[in-house]
Amino acid sequence: MSPKITTELLKQLRQVMKSPKYVQEPVQAYIVPSGDAHQSEYIAPCDCRRAFISGFDGSAGTAIVTEQHAAMWTDGRYFLQAAHQMDNNWTLMKMGLKDTPTQEDWLVSVLPEGSKVGVDPFIIPADQWKRMSKALRSAGHDLVPVKENLIDTIWTDCPQRPCKPLITLDLSYTGVSWRDKIVALRSKMAERKVLWFVVTALDEVAWLFNLRGSDVEYNPVFFAYAVIGMNTIRLFIDGDRMMDPAVREHLQLDSTLEPEFKIQVMPYGSILSELQAVGAGLSPKEKVWLSDKASYALTEAIPKAYQYLTPYTPICIAKAVKNASETEGMRRAHIKDAVALCELFNWLEKEVPKGTVTEIIAADKAEEYRSQQKDFVELSFATISSTGPNGAIIHYKPVPETNRTLSVNEIYLLDSGAQYKDGTTDVTRTMHFGTPSAYEKECFTYVLKGHIAVSAAIFPNGTKGHLLDSFARSALWDCGLDYLHGTGHGVGSFLNVHEGPCGISYKTFADEPLEAGMIVSDEPGYYEDGSFGIRIENVVLVVPAETKYNFKNRGSLTFEPLTLVPIQTKMIDVNLLTQKECNWVNDYHQKCREVIGAELERQGRHEALRWLIQETEPLIRVQ
Amino acid sequence: MSPKITTELLKQLRQVMKSPKYVQEPVQAYIVPSGDAHQSEYIAPCDCRRAFISGFDGSAGTAIVTEQHAAMWTDGRYFLQAAHQMDNNWTLMKMGLKDTPTQEDWLVSVLPEGSKVGVDPFIIPADQWKRMSKALRSAGHDLVPVKENLIDTIWTDCPQRPCKPLITLDLSYTGVSWRDKIVALRSKMAERKVLWFVVTALDEVAWLFNLRGSDVEYNPVFFAYAVIGMNTIRLFIDGDRMMDPAVREHLQLDSTLEPEFKIQVMPYGSILSELQAVGAGLSPKEKVWLSDKASYALTEAIPKAYQYLTPYTPICIAKAVKNASETEGMRRAHIKDAVALCELFNWLEKEVPKGTVTEIIAADKAEEYRSQQKDFVELSFATISSTGPNGAIIHYKPVPETNRTLSVNEIYLLDSGAQYKDGTTDVTRTMHFGTPSAYEKECFTYVLKGHIAVSAAIFPNGTKGHLLDSFARSALWDCGLDYLHGTGHGVGSFLNVHEGPCGISYKTFADEPLEAGMIVSDEPGYYEDGSFGIRIENVVLVVPAETKYNFKNRGSLTFEPLTLVPIQTKMIDVNLLTQKECNWVNDYHQKCREVIGAELERQGRHEALRWLIQETEPLIRVQ
Repeated sequence: MSPKITTELLKQLRQVMKSPKYVQEPVQAYIVPSGDAHQSEYIAPCDCRRAFISGFDGSAGTAIVTEQHAAMWTDGRYFLQAAHQMDNNWTLMKMGLKDTPTQEDWLVSVLPEGSKVGVDPFIIPADQWKRMSKALRSAGHDLVPVKENLIDTIWTDCPQRPCKPLITLDLSYTGVSWRDKIVALRSKMAERKVLWFVVTALDEVAWLFNLRGSDVEYNPVFFAYAVIGMNTIRLFIDGDRMMDPAVREHLQLDSTLEPEFKIQVMPYGSILSELQAVGAGLSPKEKVWLSDKASYALTEAIPKAYQYLTPYTPICIAKAVKNASETEGMRRAHIKDAVALCELFNWLEKEVPKGTVTEIIAADKAEEYRSQQKDFVELSFATISSTGPNGAIIHYKPVPETNRTLSVNEIYLLDSGAQYKDGTTDVTRTMHFGTPSAYEKECFTYVLKGHIAVSAAIFPNGTKGHLLDSFARSALWDCGLDYLHGTGHGVGSFLNVHEGPCGISYKTFADEPLEAGMIVSDEPGYYEDGSFGIRIENVVLVVPAETKYNFKNRGSLTFEPLTLVPIQTKMIDVNLLTQKECNWVNDYHQKCREVIGAELERQGRHEALRWLIQETEPLIRVQ
Repeated sequence: MSPKITTELLKQLRQVMKSPKYVQEPVQAYIVPSGDAHQSEYIAPCDCRRAFISGFDGSAGTAIVTEQHAAMWTDGRYFLQAAHQMDNNWTLMKMGLKDTPTQEDWLVSVLPEGSKVGVDPFIIPADQWKRMSKALRSAGHDLVPVKENLIDTIWTDCPQRPCKPLITLDLSYTGVSWRDKIVALRSKMAERKVLWFVVTALDEVAWLFNLRGSDVEYNPVFFAYAVIGMNTIRLFIDGDRMMDPAVREHLQLDSTLEPEFKIQVMPYGSILSELQAVGAGLSPKEKVWLSDKASYALTEAIPKAYQYLTPYTPICIAKAVKNASETEGMRRAHIKDAVALCELFNWLEKEVPKGTVTEIIAADKAEEYRSQQKDFVELSFATISSTGPNGAIIHYKPVPETNRTLSVNEIYLLDSGAQYKDGTTDVTRTMHFGTPSAYEKECFTYVLKGHIAVSAAIFPNGTKGHLLDSFARSALWDCGLDYLHGTGHGVGSFLNVHEGPCGISYKTFADEPLEAGMIVSDEPGYYEDGSFGIRIENVVLVVPAETKYNFKNRGSLTFEPLTLVPIQTKMIDVNLLTQKECNWVNDYHQKCREVIGAELERQGRHEALRWLIQETEPLIRVQ
């Protein structure tokens, strides 16, 4: 992977930062955040401005360009990748390390007195604007909104914003109609005494209307906003997608409806002016509810006194708790996904020793097997197919320049998942196709112990996920090992593979309490730079647990793995497991055999079934 | 314990809330926070305004009185106590429970439109003011500062503010002179480019000047503020304490000194006007550093543009990391403290069966044994001496009305500690003087497992304490049990028994990372309302750990118990311990025997030594 040469681009950007054509006053620094106008994690090509200016295309990062410097903040998943993709014009700021300055502190240290720092107000979330603005102001600088995106002005071949057809989801998938979701939302609005709710996150729009799209790769969403009043529904969306009879029928656009369920369709670009009109028409005590992560531009459309901002919206919270139809869909999706992976691993076991399978070939093969399954739509993220040292690049994606050949001498890490119409999957397995070293087995076993510690944890109803994060690290910590990423994230139901408001990470404190029906990943790892990467990831469902004393009827929770793919026993040092951990592995494999075995049988995939049986032989622990 | 009858007091308070003599405009609600003007946890009798108005005298709680309602917010430690101490005029708001409203939400729900909510600006921390003010404003109300404290206006027999003599501490106790502490502070100020630092917390003033006092019970502090400039030192303190030759010598008040170390002594009451003068004389870019927990009154003395607020001050952080002299002092203090407790428990073992020992007698006896030790100053908090159901009142303090007699049929919980000139102690032991039930032993053993899980935890340098909290709960959670308090708090060195910025609690995220030299408590518990309470608490020192791989030289940490008092083996169900846990108990008891045994021998306390030997017999686990 050779870095992108950005000398000329940075020169151009620095010119427009001073050009009266684009800025009222010159800006001495320009911030290029990661997201789009919806604060999406995965973004459309037209929104990949940070990657365009820097070359670094990981899913998280913020670039700041001043007259003299260019710096990139990203987290532990991307330290190696960012270092590889950026040229010498850029300084990498490793977030989470003690000596790394915050963006604000760094700006204050490098800017001349009384500087202006520019940012696109549609791209920066309101909460970040506020924090950044305050810190800069207290150091004598100003954060200023720059209406025209300065990257777009120098990005001559910027792709068009996508506008693809929509998919309608019926009750068998969603469990709840969009009308009932609107009713529930309005009741939450009434509770908080707000009159309007602005839906800005793309997955929240999709979930609310039981629609899916494909405007953004991997995330089945479409570009739209919605503004929900107590008696009105406005959907801001472009293109002729609303001409599709199935969509019209689904949204009952041509039916005679009670007025409060009549959807007014408006152009995507009119959201700001419409919201300003709403803001202008408010009486005292009338509030508008927005996420505090909504863009600064939309938030400022509502006068401050009328804003009601919360870190998580009621849609975000409702969406996280899957109903019975969604849970059953997720189970089905994970069974199909496991079938595909059994096929893949069986195939790899035979092919890798021939020396002909590269990381890209393996990733493509995984996609091929998945695409054979019913209701397959697309992958849920870029497949991380990595062998040997590439495995240590936590969110690696193989490209021709880095593409390594799988061998019997190196650890192979596959982190992959798919979107099926009935659910979203995300699974990581770490395999060795030869004989792993004692050290590799030792590290793998600690990671496994961490995975089990979370998966089998029992905790009181209402516990926040971040309180479970250390369980995943304890076995690694005992030996002086750790990993620089969180342990788990929420997973959508045929929606974004990363979703809030719950997760398992030392990095957040604002997560919502876990409750039965939530779905998260459990994915501890260990990474040895230049050598190998290990990660074991299941998607798990929060379920009630049975305990002796049941927290005085507060209720007990635990996790049930939805992912049912064998964990390679060859990589396990059984003597490092307790009997309880050993039983967990055997019980898990027994369930894989039963559930996935039956489906492999049903699909007539006999060779993969033989592989499954062999891989799920019980472990025996020598006392 | 009968509740305080507050009907008449509330009537009087509601009158002054409307009286033009005290308020510019009537206030519809009045907030009575827990703290004093220094946001102290332990406060002088003259500052116990919340206890005066409500009857509830726990260490944490906020009262709010409106024209119609009176409500009290407190946390899980105090639910039972508050319910007992308050009459029917009061509604108890149980913080931490899902359905309990925040103070802001509750106010918004009960206040008439456009209300004024009053509070003493010296008593409310700036960060709380800000949050409360914002929430009220967004609901159409106003938070207003009421200069004269309204409780004081109705508190006819309010005691005087104490003004007791000071103790000077020499280098053998503190390890660092006050001059060197000032130098270090100024270098932190230079790093952050601030010109002034305002010391508002009493323990920070005491630590900075190597002085101690006794203005507040249990906390060896004195009422004072300090304002440190780059070339000036101002100490705001009342009384003739500065006439004491030892203090004058210690502070070098009569020596010819470099001007930047010359201490200007000023009246305690002049802090606000002096600070306003500092604020008025600032040029742009000149900043004043305050804790964001400093009072609203002092914070507002500095114009907003010049304020530099942080959650933890550099003094708070420096104070938390004990140097070699302080650590050695803490070790000595804990050895003496253990001697006293061995005497006590040996005495209880003989006396309890006679049925003559009450909770108060036991607490007094503990104090008597402690006071026999060298450099004993006072207790470090009100002794929690509780038997049977009283043990479930987490911060119980025996009073004649509740005083139970210890018996061979009930669990006894003693949480106690002392201030010695060389260190502060805080230890909890839970004992049974007869035969504990299987259930009591089961619960005790889960608590012990949690205690060991924290104490023996190994974690990377820089880990925040809150990430260790769940380790203490895991064994309890597995059986559906939990406790409603944090697991540990920072402990001062002959200073406050509770101090920031580190701790082990699920409730905070803003704690500073643990580093070697910090001292915290490790005190999981389990409480069965109406039956018993169990808690096992050691004070532990953060020390480097040896691990196989040492986090790639990031360094490993663990804890070393400073408390060396036997844990009653009679209460342990050995079969619930792992071999590792069993070894931990035996190693711990071996150390108690060696270290405390030698001291008991040296002090000629042979009977207590025999008790120690008997109590530290190794556990044997049946495989």
